[in-house]
Amino acid sequence: MEKIYATYLIETPLDVAKAAATLAGEQSSGTFVAVPGETEELKQRFAARVEKITLLESVSAPSLPGAKSASGKFQRAEVVVSWSLENMGYNLPTLVSTIQGNLYEITAFTGLKLMDVELPPSFAQHFRGPKFGVAGCRQLTKVEGRPLIGTIIKPSIGLSPEQTAALVKVLAEAGIDFIKDDELMANPPHSPFDERVDAIMRVINDHADCTGKRVMYAFNVSDEMDAMQRHYEKIISAGGTSAMISLNSVGLSGAKKICDHGALAIHGHRNGWGMLNRHPLLGIEFPAYQKLWRLAGVDQLHVNGIANKFWESDDSVVRSIEACAKPLLGGMSVLPVVSSGQWGGQACETFRRTKTVDLLYMAGGGIMAHPDGPAAGVRSLQKWWEAAVEGLTQEQAAAKYLELKKSVEKFGKTK
Amino acid sequence: MEKIYATYLIETPLDVAKAAATLAGEQSSGTFVAVPGETEELKQRFAARVEKITLLESVSAPSLPGAKSASGKFQRAEVVVSWSLENMGYNLPTLVSTIQGNLYEITAFTGLKLMDVELPPSFAQHFRGPKFGVAGCRQLTKVEGRPLIGTIIKPSIGLSPEQTAALVKVLAEAGIDFIKDDELMANPPHSPFDERVDAIMRVINDHADCTGKRVMYAFNVSDEMDAMQRHYEKIISAGGTSAMISLNSVGLSGAKKICDHGALAIHGHRNGWGMLNRHPLLGIEFPAYQKLWRLAGVDQLHVNGIANKFWESDDSVVRSIEACAKPLLGGMSVLPVVSSGQWGGQACETFRRTKTVDLLYMAGGGIMAHPDGPAAGVRSLQKWWEAAVEGLTQEQAAAKYLELKKSVEKFGKTK
Repeated sequence: MEKIYATYLIETPLDVAKAAATLAGEQSSGTFVAVPGETEELKQRFAARVEKITLLESVSAPSLPGAKSASGKFQRAEVVVSWSLENMGYNLPTLVSTIQGNLYEITAFTGLKLMDVELPPSFAQHFRGPKFGVAGCRQLTKVEGRPLIGTIIKPSIGLSPEQTAALVKVLAEAGIDFIKDDELMANPPHSPFDERVDAIMRVINDHADCTGKRVMYAFNVSDEMDAMQRHYEKIISAGGTSAMISLNSVGLSGAKKICDHGALAIHGHRNGWGMLNRHPLLGIEFPAYQKLWRLAGVDQLHVNGIANKFWESDDSVVRSIEACAKPLLGGMSVLPVVSSGQWGGQACETFRRTKTVDLLYMAGGGIMAHPDGPAAGVRSLQKWWEAAVEGLTQEQAAAKYLELKKSVEKFGKTK
Repeated sequence: MEKIYATYLIETPLDVAKAAATLAGEQSSGTFVAVPGETEELKQRFAARVEKITLLESVSAPSLPGAKSASGKFQRAEVVVSWSLENMGYNLPTLVSTIQGNLYEITAFTGLKLMDVELPPSFAQHFRGPKFGVAGCRQLTKVEGRPLIGTIIKPSIGLSPEQTAALVKVLAEAGIDFIKDDELMANPPHSPFDERVDAIMRVINDHADCTGKRVMYAFNVSDEMDAMQRHYEKIISAGGTSAMISLNSVGLSGAKKICDHGALAIHGHRNGWGMLNRHPLLGIEFPAYQKLWRLAGVDQLHVNGIANKFWESDDSVVRSIEACAKPLLGGMSVLPVVSSGQWGGQACETFRRTKTVDLLYMAGGGIMAHPDGPAAGVRSLQKWWEAAVEGLTQEQAAAKYLELKKSVEKFGKTK
C-alpha cells in the first residue's frame, strides 16, 4: 500500500523517540484495546511509523505552555512519520486531521510544526489540481515572458460598484493584467456582488473588445456554499475569468468544490496565514500548506513578497516561491502571487533569488500613485521586471534607466 | 447601521493606541488614496473604530518574531475594535477575514489573539444556528436530566464495518447514548462509508426496535462537498440521526452547508484546535471560536474535559463549557462535548464548576475496559453523574458508592 510521509519540527520535554512514538500512536492506531484475533494484524497495517529522527538543539524554556520537563531541557528534532494510504484514502480534510489534528494539543510536545508532506503518485489520479496554473493564467491574460502585473482596488472597502468600475477603467487603460477585490469585501450591502460584477465586466468587456486584452479580475466569492456557487456562475455569465477565495476562512472542502468547476482561475488568498505560521514552533510551513491547496485546485496562491510590509523574512518568501515552482505529483502548476508593499524595485532581488518570471506581481501605490499616472505606473513595473531579467540590481537598474530612477525616488523609501 | 465588536489580546513594541489604530486601519479602510469627493464620507462609514484599550503588563521579550522594540519593551493590552455591519454583510468567511485575516502578520504586533466577538441582533435573522442543540439531541436520544453518555470506537482505525458494528452492538446493549467514528477515518478503503453505515445502522435499528432507544451514532462525513452530501443522505436513508465533521479540516463554508440541511444533529470535532489556540498570544480563544461554529449550525462542539490528557487547563475547559451554555443571539443552543481522558470520576468536578448536566460526556476505556463489562461501565458513568449532581466530590462519591470506589481503583490513576 502506498504511503504518506509528513515531516515535523518538534520540541519535547521527553525522549525524542518516545515523543515521536506518541505522535504516531495518537494519529493512527491510538490505544489498541483487544479486538479478538485482529490486534496484531491491525497494528501492522494501520500504525503510523516513525521513519526518521534528526536531533536538533535543546532549549531550556518551552516554546508552548502545558508541559514540564524533568531535566529542565526541551529537545528539538526533525521527525518523519509515515501512514499507509489505507488509513484515510483520498480525502483532504481527513488527511489534514491525520497529519495535523490533535497533535498540537499533546503534552509530549512543547512545539510542533508540520514542515512538509509527501504524497503518493496515485493522488494525481484522484486530484486534478489547478485547472489553469501558470500556463492557463498566462493564456487568459495573454502575458508571456514576464510576470503578470496586478493590483488591488483601494480603498479596501466602501466603494460603490460604479466607483469601483471607474477605477478598473483607469487601470485597464493603464495596461494592467490583473485586478482583485479586497478580502474584506465579497458581497456587502454597499457593493452587492452582482452589481459589482456587472459594472466591472462592462468596463473589462469593452476594453477587451477594443484592444483584444481581457483584464483578469478576481471577484471575491468567499461566502457560504450556495452564494459562492451563485457568484461563480455570475462571473462566468458576465465574461469574467477569475474568482478569489479567502482559503482559510472558507476552508478546504468549500474551496475545492469551487475549484472543481474549472471554468474560472481561482485566486487563493491566504489571509489568516499568520495565525498558522508566525510562531516558529507551532502550525504549518508553506511547503506543506501549498500542497494542500494545489490538491484542492487553487490556481494562484499568495506568497508575500521581498521586503514586504509584514513580518515575514525574504528567505521565507523565496522558499515559498520555490515551493510553488516545484511540480507536485508531476504537475499541478500554481502561480505564486507576490504582494505586500511591492512597488517594482523588489523585482530585481525577487528574480535574482528565484530566477523565475512565473509570478503574479501585485503592486498598489506603485501604480495608482505614480507621479506620471497609472499607465506610467504599470509601464514602470514592467520595466523593473525587464531590468531584473537583465540581471541588474535595483541600484544598477536605477542608474541605467531614468524612469526607474524616478520610481526609486518616489517609492524607494516606502519599503 | 449595526456593529460588530471584536476583543483582542495584543502585544506590541509600539504605542498601544498607534498599534490599535493600525489594526483597525488594516482591516477596514486600509490606505485611503484620494477617491474624488468620497474620501471623508467613506472613512466615516467604513473605518473600523478602536472602542476601548485596557493596558496590561509589559514584557521584555516578544512573544512572536518579526518585530523589534526601540524601548526594549513589549506592551500587552486588551483592545476592543468595532466594524459597521455594512463592511461585510452577513458572510461568515468574510467576517473571519475581517476580524482575523492579515492581522497576525502585522509587525505592529508581537502577539495577537482574538478573545471574543459580539454580533448584532440581526444575525439571528440570517443564521438559524444549530437545528438540534441541547433539546434536540436529548429528544433524539431520549435522555433527560443527565448528560448524554458517549464513547468512541477504538481502535481509532483499522476495523472493518462488521467489526465496528459488533462493537456498536456491545455498546448499545450496554446502554450507551452516543457513539462516534474517530476523526482519523471517514471513508477509508478498509471501512467504506456506506458499508459502515449499513452494518452499524442494522445494529442500531434492531436495538431501537427492541428497546425503543435509538443510539445516536455520529458518522464522520468529513470529505469533499459532494462526498459529504452523499454520505449525509446515506445516514438519513439508513435511519441515522447524526453526522460528524472535523470543523477545522473541512472549513466554515463546507460545514455550514452540511448543517443547513437540518436533518441530522451535527457533531463538531475541533481537531486542529491546538494550532489555533495553544500559544497564549496567537490565534483565537474558544468564546470567539464557538460563536462562529454555532452560527454555522453545529449542534455539538468539543470542549475537552476536566483533568484531560491534553495540555489544556481545567479553568480553560470550564470557560469553554460556560461559553457554550450562554445563549448566542438569544438562543442557538449547542451541546458541549466533554472528552479526552474521561472515565467518570471527573463528573464531580465538572458539575461542581459548571452546574450543568447539558453535556455529551465521552469516555473510552471507562466503558470498554470496565472490569465488570461495558454495561457496568455505562452504569458507572451514569452513577458518577448522579453523585456529581448530589454535590459529592470524587472522594465522597467513592466513599458512598461501592461501584464508584471500584471505578476509582481501576481508572483513578490514569488521570
